[in-house]
Amino acid sequence: NQQDSTSKSLSERKWHEIISLRGYGQVRYNRLLETNDQLRCEQCDKSWGDGGLFIRRLRLVFYGWVNERVYFYVQPDFASSSGSTLNYLQLRDAYVDLGIDKENVFRVRVGQSKVPYGFENAQSSQIRLSIDRADATNSAFVNERDLGVFFYWTPKIVQERFEKINALKLKGTGNYGMMGLGFFNGQGANKADLNKKQHVAGRFTYPFLINNSQFIETGLQAYSGEFTMPSDLLSNGVKTNFLKTYRDERVGASLTVYPQPIGIQAEYNIGKGPQFNTQTDSIEVRNLKGGYITLNAKANIGEDLFYPYVKYHYYDGGKKFEKDARSYLVKEFESGIEWQPNKYLELVVAYTISDRRFEDFVLKNNHQKGNLLRIQAQFNF
Amino acid sequence: NQQDSTSKSLSERKWHEIISLRGYGQVRYNRLLETNDQLRCEQCDKSWGDGGLFIRRLRLVFYGWVNERVYFYVQPDFASSSGSTLNYLQLRDAYVDLGIDKENVFRVRVGQSKVPYGFENAQSSQIRLSIDRADATNSAFVNERDLGVFFYWTPKIVQERFEKINALKLKGTGNYGMMGLGFFNGQGANKADLNKKQHVAGRFTYPFLINNSQFIETGLQAYSGEFTMPSDLLSNGVKTNFLKTYRDERVGASLTVYPQPIGIQAEYNIGKGPQFNTQTDSIEVRNLKGGYITLNAKANIGEDLFYPYVKYHYYDGGKKFEKDARSYLVKEFESGIEWQPNKYLELVVAYTISDRRFEDFVLKNNHQKGNLLRIQAQFNF
Amino acid sequence: NQQDSTSKSLSERKWHEIISLRGYGQVRYNRLLETNDQLRCEQCDKSWGDGGLFIRRLRLVFYGWVNERVYFYVQPDFASSSGSTLNYLQLRDAYVDLGIDKENVFRVRVGQSKVPYGFENAQSSQIRLSIDRADATNSAFVNERDLGVFFYWTPKIVQERFEKINALKLKGTGNYGMMGLGFFNGQGANKADLNKKQHVAGRFTYPFLINNSQFIETGLQAYSGEFTMPSDLLSNGVKTNFLKTYRDERVGASLTVYPQPIGIQAEYNIGKGPQFNTQTDSIEVRNLKGGYITLNAKANIGEDLFYPYVKYHYYDGGKKFEKDARSYLVKEFESGIEWQPNKYLELVVAYTISDRRFEDFVLKNNHQKGNLLRIQAQFNF
Repeated sequence: NQQDSTSKSLSERKWHEIISLRGYGQVRYNRLLETNDQLRCEQCDKSWGDGGLFIRRLRLVFYGWVNERVYFYVQPDFASSSGSTLNYLQLRDAYVDLGIDKENVFRVRVGQSKVPYGFENAQSSQIRLSIDRADATNSAFVNERDLGVFFYWTPKIVQERFEKINALKLKGTGNYGMMGLGFFNGQGANKADLNKKQHVAGRFTYPFLINNSQFIETGLQAYSGEFTMPSDLLSNGVKTNFLKTYRDERVGASLTVYPQPIGIQAEYNIGKGPQFNTQTDSIEVRNLKGGYITLNAKANIGEDLFYPYVKYHYYDGGKKFEKDARSYLVKEFESGIEWQPNKYLELVVAYTISDRRFEDFVLKNNHQKGNLLRIQAQFNF
Repeated sequence: NQQDSTSKSLSERKWHEIISLRGYGQVRYNRLLETNDQLRCEQCDKSWGDGGLFIRRLRLVFYGWVNERVYFYVQPDFASSSGSTLNYLQLRDAYVDLGIDKENVFRVRVGQSKVPYGFENAQSSQIRLSIDRADATNSAFVNERDLGVFFYWTPKIVQERFEKINALKLKGTGNYGMMGLGFFNGQGANKADLNKKQHVAGRFTYPFLINNSQFIETGLQAYSGEFTMPSDLLSNGVKTNFLKTYRDERVGASLTVYPQPIGIQAEYNIGKGPQFNTQTDSIEVRNLKGGYITLNAKANIGEDLFYPYVKYHYYDGGKKFEKDARSYLVKEFESGIEWQPNKYLELVVAYTISDRRFEDFVLKNNHQKGNLLRIQAQFNF
Repeated sequence: NQQDSTSKSLSERKWHEIISLRGYGQVRYNRLLETNDQLRCEQCDKSWGDGGLFIRRLRLVFYGWVNERVYFYVQPDFASSSGSTLNYLQLRDAYVDLGIDKENVFRVRVGQSKVPYGFENAQSSQIRLSIDRADATNSAFVNERDLGVFFYWTPKIVQERFEKINALKLKGTGNYGMMGLGFFNGQGANKADLNKKQHVAGRFTYPFLINNSQFIETGLQAYSGEFTMPSDLLSNGVKTNFLKTYRDERVGASLTVYPQPIGIQAEYNIGKGPQFNTQTDSIEVRNLKGGYITLNAKANIGEDLFYPYVKYHYYDGGKKFEKDARSYLVKEFESGIEWQPNKYLELVVAYTISDRRFEDFVLKNNHQKGNLLRIQAQFNF
């Protein structure tokens, strides 16, 4: 694609040969068979326990190779609220990739983009099987993204494997580097930076090819930085340290046996970060840990694709980008199936059994258990 | 158009053959010959009685057939305010149509879209003759839209008549079904749902063809649901029922004699819904009624098109999506003319004689009368 | 380009031959060698003294000739904050140009657009050499823009000179008319109008061609109107006049010797407008004055372009669109260089020595001096 569109002399290309546009949308309904409407997950899905149909995502992607070594990617999302009103357009990705070499083995990325931390975080929501990402790894960064400078190293053979995994519809991450290294603000996507210190994150992942057919990917990642609690996330009365600034660091491992036809996807991470302490009414640096394991399969029935799965995840730690660095203890089991009648449509139905303790200065002693059916229709264009 | 763009093998199509883009903008000035700057209509036009030039609408439409049976339509608007700042981009439409059959006689629509309730509500603002929609029917839903699942049945012959009405520039609605049935949240476009109950709406409309030349369309519509007053619309001190949830239902009829060259457009509806009661300082379910009648004409003078019109409308009821379900008694007369020098430009000038009582917890005993000249320039691209 | 795309019969043109799309982005870092983090400039750059990397601009431009005389231009920006959250999409430009004659010598522009006041204000940020515009002239209008009706007169020879200046990469303004006259709301882009009176602005500029090679442009401009302080910009306790409405008028002169290879760019303006008075705690009409001078050069080294520059600017006056019409006394020196390795990328590094007094009802006696290194990467697509 890159080769095609840049083979013409660049000055001959029309705008629509340089810039491409695509998009996708997701609509959800979470209220069927719901047993407890106080069971919520702010980060996962704002429509848990509340309301009816919900536009979870509506994204446009403007992207293209402006020349052999320069690629841009601008992805806004329409499902962004501002105050009590929904569906404003707000940035998710906005970056430029500069190839150091002609094959783009070494790239520098500048802008807002996913932080190289974790497999499920890198995997697009358009691709992901389970309805939401796991709290344990997704609590690392809000919307998985931040603003910074990122270096990616992806040898040609690894580039080809990432592409092959994609082409086989095995639900990979695409090319976020065999090795990725990022220096970024650390306050999360679309948030003003509040301290002069940069976060650093690094990730190494390798897609092994076994018997020339089975892909298995293993990865390691870590990040470190200082997170400053923004004042609009602090309840009146909650205690913080003087600078409202806290150590924030993690290390984790990932394993993906791609579903050919049976697969496993698992990650685990430990670390420390700001977390609300109900005993002291204060935000403190505390240890965190958690992960998930998914068993899945891929089945072609006629022209249709089916992906059944079960997932269990666990998290014990804080969420720094929620009210008072809300404290979490999560145990959740989900069983579901994704159906793709064609490449434009997807339907996921999942049954979730959840046990969530989430507490902040206002919401003390808040332990919620319950079950619900979750339905998501997705459309790609 | 659909046929053209899908006749190629789908995999051969470039992105700009799948996705199309168009748009339109409207700029207004309401202050000439204005006799009372306290005369306002929040729903109709936020620039009444205030300020100067105003961008009323600026819309982009991304749309296309991804295959023979799957159509998407994403229409954001730039004229959306957030706090005291104007002109953010926010969704209006965002839906996918799935054809049950190859001719799209039966369609399922999923997403945010116009609710099938009323002719003028379905008619695009890009097409509509009068400056604003009538309070009586437009008070049914904010921005005419909601998030839900909609079923449309449009026999081939009716599809062709809708297209023909469009091609003749007679100011129809386009294809919102001969029969439409919708299940939706009921709180209005871009608003979080606040109760678990869905609204239901149904509409039947038929475009008769008389003497093989004159189009006459008649319709019936109704909806029913429970509306929950959102807390940001409640004044401090206003009384509500315990759940802040109110019966909300209407039934209405429509008649359109298309201007060939003289036309009539009329609608009337009755029902009940939440409404502020100035006697009791509370929001209560009360009866509502109202409608409008428009006499119009279509004249070609050289290459130019002219549409003169007179419109009278009346409404006695509440507006559930305004402060305290504001109470309204509206009698308004408008006389105007639309001029289309070419297909890209439109100018409407209208003189409005208005008598509006609109009251909430803060604005008691608020009866405003006055006249004003209204000017709108529209541009299509 | 206009000629090419309209030479086909209009009805044959596809949407992507009518509508074009382009864009650019800027990312900044202001914290290196920073000596005083209380030194700020709200209008120039919200990331001074705060945080880390910052998306300064991310703009998409939808534009095109719909026919020989009708041109539209819609430019939203992603780097717009709403509350404490960043990166919403908001309008900058949204206008239609109607050519009175076929050569577009006389044009009427309707919509939101730059006010014809000043050379640096008209010059795009994508083109401008210095990191920010000078306070003295940029304090005239927020984002340089307003909503109104504008008349432009550009004789054919002047059109060609503007194009030539552009083609030579001399950093001109493009065609904002040899003569421009505007009638507009006067409250600034994306702000509701708060009084019935329109602002008026006029500008005359002429690009002389000396010895058939050296371009020199001189201009005069002025505007006049009444500005109403919006209530969300007033501190609790600040005194205003009864209508919160103030005389707002300026006159200025501009000189640009284009860098062939050495250039000068200078502007100065005087006038009066609302300004906070620290002695009386009130907003009053006060005199304002200020300007800037830039010395620059253009150097081709191989395929790369370099533009070194020094700039000094001075402003003594108020900023009507900041808190309490904040009072300013600014003396600032900047020395920098822009590097363009190709037409898609730009890097600017500048060292700034700044002395800024800026005071409002809360921020009294606030005189800040300091130095900092400023870095900006720009990407065009």
